[in-house]
Formats: sequence, C-alpha cells, structure tokens
Amino acid sequence: MEIPYKIYLEENEMPKYWYNMRADMKNKPAPLLNPGTHKPVTFDELSHVFCDELVKQELDDTTAFFEIPEEIRSFYRMYRPAPLVRAYCLEKKLGTPAKIYYKFEGNNTSGSHKLNSAIAQAYYAKKQGLKGVTTETGAGQWGTALSMACAYFGLDCKVYMVKVSYEQKPFRREVMRTYGATVTPSPSMETEVGRRILEKHPGTTGSLGCAISEAVEKATTSKGYRYVLGSVLNQVLLHQSVIGLETKAALDKYNIKPDIIIGCAGGGSNLGGLISPFMGEKLRGESDVRIIAIEPASCPSFTRGTFAYDFCDTGMMTPLAKMYTLGSDFIPSPSHAGGLRYHGMSSTLSQLYHDGYMEAASVNQTDVFKAAEYFARIEGILPAPESSHAIYAAIEEAKKCKENGEEKTIVFGLTGTGYFDMVAYEKFHDGKMDDSVPSDEELKKYADMLPKVE
Amino acid sequence: MEIPYKIYLEENEMPKYWYNMRADMKNKPAPLLNPGTHKPVTFDELSHVFCDELVKQELDDTTAFFEIPEEIRSFYRMYRPAPLVRAYCLEKKLGTPAKIYYKFEGNNTSGSHKLNSAIAQAYYAKKQGLKGVTTETGAGQWGTALSMACAYFGLDCKVYMVKVSYEQKPFRREVMRTYGATVTPSPSMETEVGRRILEKHPGTTGSLGCAISEAVEKATTSKGYRYVLGSVLNQVLLHQSVIGLETKAALDKYNIKPDIIIGCAGGGSNLGGLISPFMGEKLRGESDVRIIAIEPASCPSFTRGTFAYDFCDTGMMTPLAKMYTLGSDFIPSPSHAGGLRYHGMSSTLSQLYHDGYMEAASVNQTDVFKAAEYFARIEGILPAPESSHAIYAAIEEAKKCKENGEEKTIVFGLTGTGYFDMVAYEKFHDGKMDDSVPSDEELKKYADMLPKVE
Repeated sequence: MEIPYKIYLEENEMPKYWYNMRADMKNKPAPLLNPGTHKPVTFDELSHVFCDELVKQELDDTTAFFEIPEEIRSFYRMYRPAPLVRAYCLEKKLGTPAKIYYKFEGNNTSGSHKLNSAIAQAYYAKKQGLKGVTTETGAGQWGTALSMACAYFGLDCKVYMVKVSYEQKPFRREVMRTYGATVTPSPSMETEVGRRILEKHPGTTGSLGCAISEAVEKATTSKGYRYVLGSVLNQVLLHQSVIGLETKAALDKYNIKPDIIIGCAGGGSNLGGLISPFMGEKLRGESDVRIIAIEPASCPSFTRGTFAYDFCDTGMMTPLAKMYTLGSDFIPSPSHAGGLRYHGMSSTLSQLYHDGYMEAASVNQTDVFKAAEYFARIEGILPAPESSHAIYAAIEEAKKCKENGEEKTIVFGLTGTGYFDMVAYEKFHDGKMDDSVPSDEELKKYADMLPKVE
Repeated sequence: MEIPYKIYLEENEMPKYWYNMRADMKNKPAPLLNPGTHKPVTFDELSHVFCDELVKQELDDTTAFFEIPEEIRSFYRMYRPAPLVRAYCLEKKLGTPAKIYYKFEGNNTSGSHKLNSAIAQAYYAKKQGLKGVTTETGAGQWGTALSMACAYFGLDCKVYMVKVSYEQKPFRREVMRTYGATVTPSPSMETEVGRRILEKHPGTTGSLGCAISEAVEKATTSKGYRYVLGSVLNQVLLHQSVIGLETKAALDKYNIKPDIIIGCAGGGSNLGGLISPFMGEKLRGESDVRIIAIEPASCPSFTRGTFAYDFCDTGMMTPLAKMYTLGSDFIPSPSHAGGLRYHGMSSTLSQLYHDGYMEAASVNQTDVFKAAEYFARIEGILPAPESSHAIYAAIEEAKKCKENGEEKTIVFGLTGTGYFDMVAYEKFHDGKMDDSVPSDEELKKYADMLPKVE
C-alpha cells in the first residue's frame, strides 16, 4: 500500500477520548505533596490553584479514558487532525533505508502543540464560571495558545513571560495581544514573589520556574481566577495524548508499527502526549518500541538531574512533585536559545524513565540548529528549536539504520514552527551560538538545595 | 451531506494540470510590447530575462492545460493539498445564513501561496542548467518562497527586498538566509538603476517596481542567471491556478456551487489563481458566479488606475504591459502596512475586469486590520494583512446575506499568515494606523506620465 506524503485522519476518525497513561502504570507516579506538611495534596488544596475538573484529572491515576467534551472537539476540528508526514525527501537525502514519519503540530496560529491543552483548560475554566486565568510562558508558545483559547471562550488571560523571551520575541507579545491577552515580563514588580526574586537576582533574565510563581500568586490572590500550566502536569499530558492517539490511528490505517519514537522534552507535554498510546502498549506488554526523550545539554533534567521531590517553581509556592530535576533555583544560561528551559520534568515521565520504559539523551544547541536548518531546506518546514532536538535525534537514528542496513520505522514529534525564533536562527547563522553547559559543581550546588522529604 | 471543517483532497485527486484562463478569453490580454519599438516582444527578447520554458508559458494564450511536471507535483505534495476550510465559527459569530469557505494557502513555511509558482520557476531554471535566479520581494512572502524553492533544487537565490519591508521585517530576511538566499535592501548601490533611483529619491523606502528593476538588471548582467517574478505575469497566474483547481475539486466533491468568489489583489497572483477555473466556466457561459477583487485604498490600481500600457518596474527596464496601473513611478505611502503595494495589475485580470467579468473594490487599512483581528479570534488563524482584505469583503457580503436572508455560498482566498507582520499589527493595536489615500492630483500626475503607445 502506497503511503502518502501526509496521512490525514477523517474528522470522524479523530479521537473522542484522551488516554491517561497512569492507568496502565504498575508503579504510579508519586503523589504531589503539600510543601508544608509533606502529605499528599488534597482536592481542596489544589482547587484553590486549578479549576475543579482539572484537579480531578490531575489526581486520577486509574481512569484510562476521559471523554473529550464536544466543545473541545469542535475547536480541535478547526486545526486538527494534524498531519502525520512521511519524510520522503529527508529519507532520500540521507540515503537511509529507515522510514521516517513526523507528527506535525505546528499548523495552527499558536505554532505548536500547546493549543491541545490550552483549549481544554480554558474550557473547564469557562465551565466553572471563572473570569479568567493566569499563566507563564517561556518561548511564548504556551502563552499564545492560551490567548487563542481564552479569546475563543471569552476569558481574561494574564501571561507572565520569561524576560529573556519577552525581549528576544517582541512579536510573540503582539500575537498574544491580538488575541486580547495582557503580557508581563517576568520577574515583574507586580507580585510579591517577583519583587523578592528581583531583589535577590537584580539582573536576572527570568526562568519558567520564576514566571510560574508569579502566575500562581496572581491567580490565588485574584477573585474568579485560576492558574493554568502548559506542561509538566498530568492533566496536560492527558490532553496532549490527542497527539499520540492521532499518530497511532494514522499509522494503524497503513498497518505501520514504529520501532523508535522520539520526542523533545522540556517539561514533558509534547513527549508525554506523543508517546501515550505507544507507552500504553509497552506498559501492557504488547510492544517493545524504543522511546527516546531528547533534551538540551544546557538544561539536562533527565540525563544529569536527580530523581527527587522538588518544587515546580522558583518561588517555592507550588506543591512538591517527584521528578527528575536540576533544582528549582536552577536557571539555564541566557545564551541558551533552544527552548526547553524548565528545571524539572513531568512526574509521570520521570517515573517511566526511572523504571526503564524510555531512554533519554541530550544535545547541544549548535547541533540542534544545524539539524533545524538541514530539515528546513529538505522538508520545507521551518522548525522550532524545541522540535529540532527531536529532528537531530531522528536523523542520527536514520544514519545508524543506513550504516547497519536496517529498515526501521522512526516516528518523531515536530511540535512547532520557528517563525518567532529568528533571533536564535540569526545567532546560529552568525556563528554566535554558545554551547556551554552547566558544570558538575553548579548542578551539585542546586541538587544539595533540594527539599528534604522523608 | 455533512461538510467537514476542512475539506482535504486525497493526493491522487490533486491537479495534474495547470489551467490557462487566456485560452477561454475572447478578448485576449494585449501582448507585452518592446519599450523601444512598441512592437510585441518576441521569445528571443524575453528569454534574456526569463527561463525559456517560462517565456513559452508567458506567450501562449491558446493552450488551456499545461501538465505539471512530476518534480513539481512531488514538491506540491510536501505542503499541498491546501485545506478548503468551512468557516463554521465565523458564520455562527456573524449569525449569517451565508456559507463561508476559505482556501487556506498559509500552511507552509513561506507562509503564503507564493510557493506554488516559486517551485515551478525554480524547476524550469534548474532544468535549463542555470546557476541561479534573481528576484524582488515586498512583504517578503515571495522572497521566502523562492528561497525555499531554490534550496530544494540547489540554485543560487538573490533577493532585492523593498527597503521598508526589509526594515520592518528583519526576521523575514533571517528565514531567507536559513534557506541560503542573499537579501539586499532595495534600492541598493549594487545596481545602476538602484544608484540612479537613490540619487533621484535619496530618502525613498523603496517600492516593488524599483526592486524589480534592480533584480532584472542583476539577472541580465550576470552569467547563468535569469530573473523570476512572483506576480503579475501570465506564467504566475498559470502556476497559481492550482489554488482554484483544488478549490473547485474540493467544492465539487460536495456538490457546492459558489455564488461569490473574493480575492485580494496586489499584482494578481492569488486572485488570478483562485478564480481560474471558475472564471473559465464564466467565460464559457457555464456560470454567472460573482468575482470580486479587493485592493488597498492606498494602492488602488483597479478602482482608481488607468487601463493603459505601462512599465512593470520603476526603472523602465521591463516590457510594457497593458494593465490597470497607477503609473510605474507611483509609490504607496510608507504608512501603508497592508501589503499589495504594486502599482499595476496582471494584464489578464485587467482585461477581464475591463470586459466586466469581475468587480473590484478598495478598503482602508484600519478596516483591514479590524477584520484580521476579528477573524484571528474566531477562526484561530492569524491572517496576513494582504489576505485580510478578502476577509473584510467576505464578512461584508455575509452581513448582507444576513440582512437579506440569503443563503449564499461565499468562497475567499486566505493567502497567508501574518507571523511576520506583527509590526503592522502593533501599529494597529496602538491606534497608529494611517488611512491616508493618494489624492486625485497625485494619481493624475502619474497617469499623465504613462508612456504613449499608439
């Protein structure tokens, strides 16, 4: 059967349920803890921060399938199904016998997969009768996605944007404004935690962890608001499972079994979503597909972090999550342009990695941008730096297939487009990329500061 | 039959032939003239400027169908078929009984429909054994598209970018660089014509007409190079017919007959492509569909121009074309941010408009950006300012349907995305848009300067 360049599902083949990997895990991810008592957080505690329905999803590690509400499915139909692309041109250029596929999540205005969870979180906020939501954004993809989702449901949207991105990506702010959001560079003087961080680190360019603290403070001190987060959380992985479910449905249509699945990993939203149904099969003993997480060498939580309880934010306002972490005070070098700047990692993915269900590797940013430009010229899509981590790894695996004469099927997640990353591309073109990585001493310093949990 | 949100053709349903409207026109567009002798230009004269195969296409007004070479169809499969979207959300918001569809050409990295012709022109240049091509770009969409196409075929690509866009859109340049092109702000000191224009108008922000002159000079004075153009020409309309052919095939699948077709018009590449097969039916007396061209009030060639022979460029290096024109020295106000800055209009479209086969209207840029933002929030796509001219008109027609209780089917071309137009969006958000239009005196001055052709 001839495989088309792009496999599209029909609208009636699109997923009607999200899939919750945790239901199939023998070792469940460790529960979130109250940072004061070190006891598992309760629904009531979390519901001050998050919408009720989302808290339920967050805490539920036994229900395998959650029905996608019709209002969300209707929005999904505006930009989904996302194509599963057969990278014929890339295969030819590499001269590899490998078959390469990528799930392209960048063909919507937010430019990334983040919209899949943004629309779900906005929907539940609206349903609960809230006035608005607060959030943080790093590269700006999540903030843009949330702005779009809030515009759709008529919710107020307040975004704290990591200062380095705010400055490098002025146009991102303008897109969010087009969708009616207000955008504040973080750390800011608007919140107590922002003022505290600025006092301690006057010249800081910010971090995701710090922007999270500000957004949480703002939500919990404003009536009718809740906080929403674009990655890390179980609820986000749940919503993002639509990526993997569509991918699997498209592959199944042509009886294709992947040998290797590759995703970039910052907090885990894309990776967790992409691998969901495949990991489900693996957890149930039905498959032995290789699953590889790729992270930046300058923010290497999987490959150089500690598997321990830690705060999800810099201001230490959030519950403790057990995860691979570099420490909540860790801030990647401002010279790092490749996204994926979060200090921790989804607890679910951390547990799966810890239990040997997936591999992880890190890559430096010059190699990432080389892969990005190579891919752009061959496959015609200008990839986001984040996505290009996965491109790099997919190309490396395809080259190995060439060396070994193996016809493996490689699937990777192309999470988004790089239209708003041209400052980083410019640096790359001008030979000004910096591949420095944190020293062992630096990582040890932050690891030693992790909260002590019995 | 239920219409999906997005109608995609299967790959085997994609057009295998381009359609040449001129074959069905009783009044053919007037021939290009040699500016010195005022005699129709010959193949030999044009082949110094353009690739041979493209000259043949340019001069052929009797062949209705041209086979699309397999190499081009293979590239098309990387980003086509483009979806035909049913604007359910927009219809609902407007409360209109009209059925609105848009052909979305922005889902490729160049961000617009321009790639459809860029890849064709690059292909013929490669086939002729050329080293490279030169061109101009205004908003940057054509330059980006051509860079992508040249990267694919391994051709050198030299782009003269209108200075105002070069300055407003630094990231456009970076995308072209990613694809290996060199980009020069125009007018430049690199060409004789550039130096001449800079001497005459020292502070000029450039114009498409002027950038064309530079690119033509560069091509005709460099060995192994030809000039390529992204709009206006018959060959471009031919390649762009793929838009209309796909649109018609998608509508035919669901037995939908459009009542109104709307496209934005600068030089005519999108409009000419979108309407091709529908105009063909109209020319053959098989349909009475309304066809509407929408142009900016600040560069109103159809609605306030003269139907006469004129130069295609400011430097008066090109052949004369009979078209609706504002005069080759006319430069739209630099405050105009909405694209579509070309002084003339495709001769084919000009003839069709002159013969009453289509209508035209102009719109000011504040209204264009209002429509753009409205559309972005409802349909989730951030439109290019150019495309938003068509959005504006489609919404107006849909409102009329509401007033009159008419269930008309409206199809418009959504030519591209606005990711690189955030400076213009910012102006709009800050209330700094300027809706000034050229005065009658100014237009008369340039009209009086048109070349006298017997």
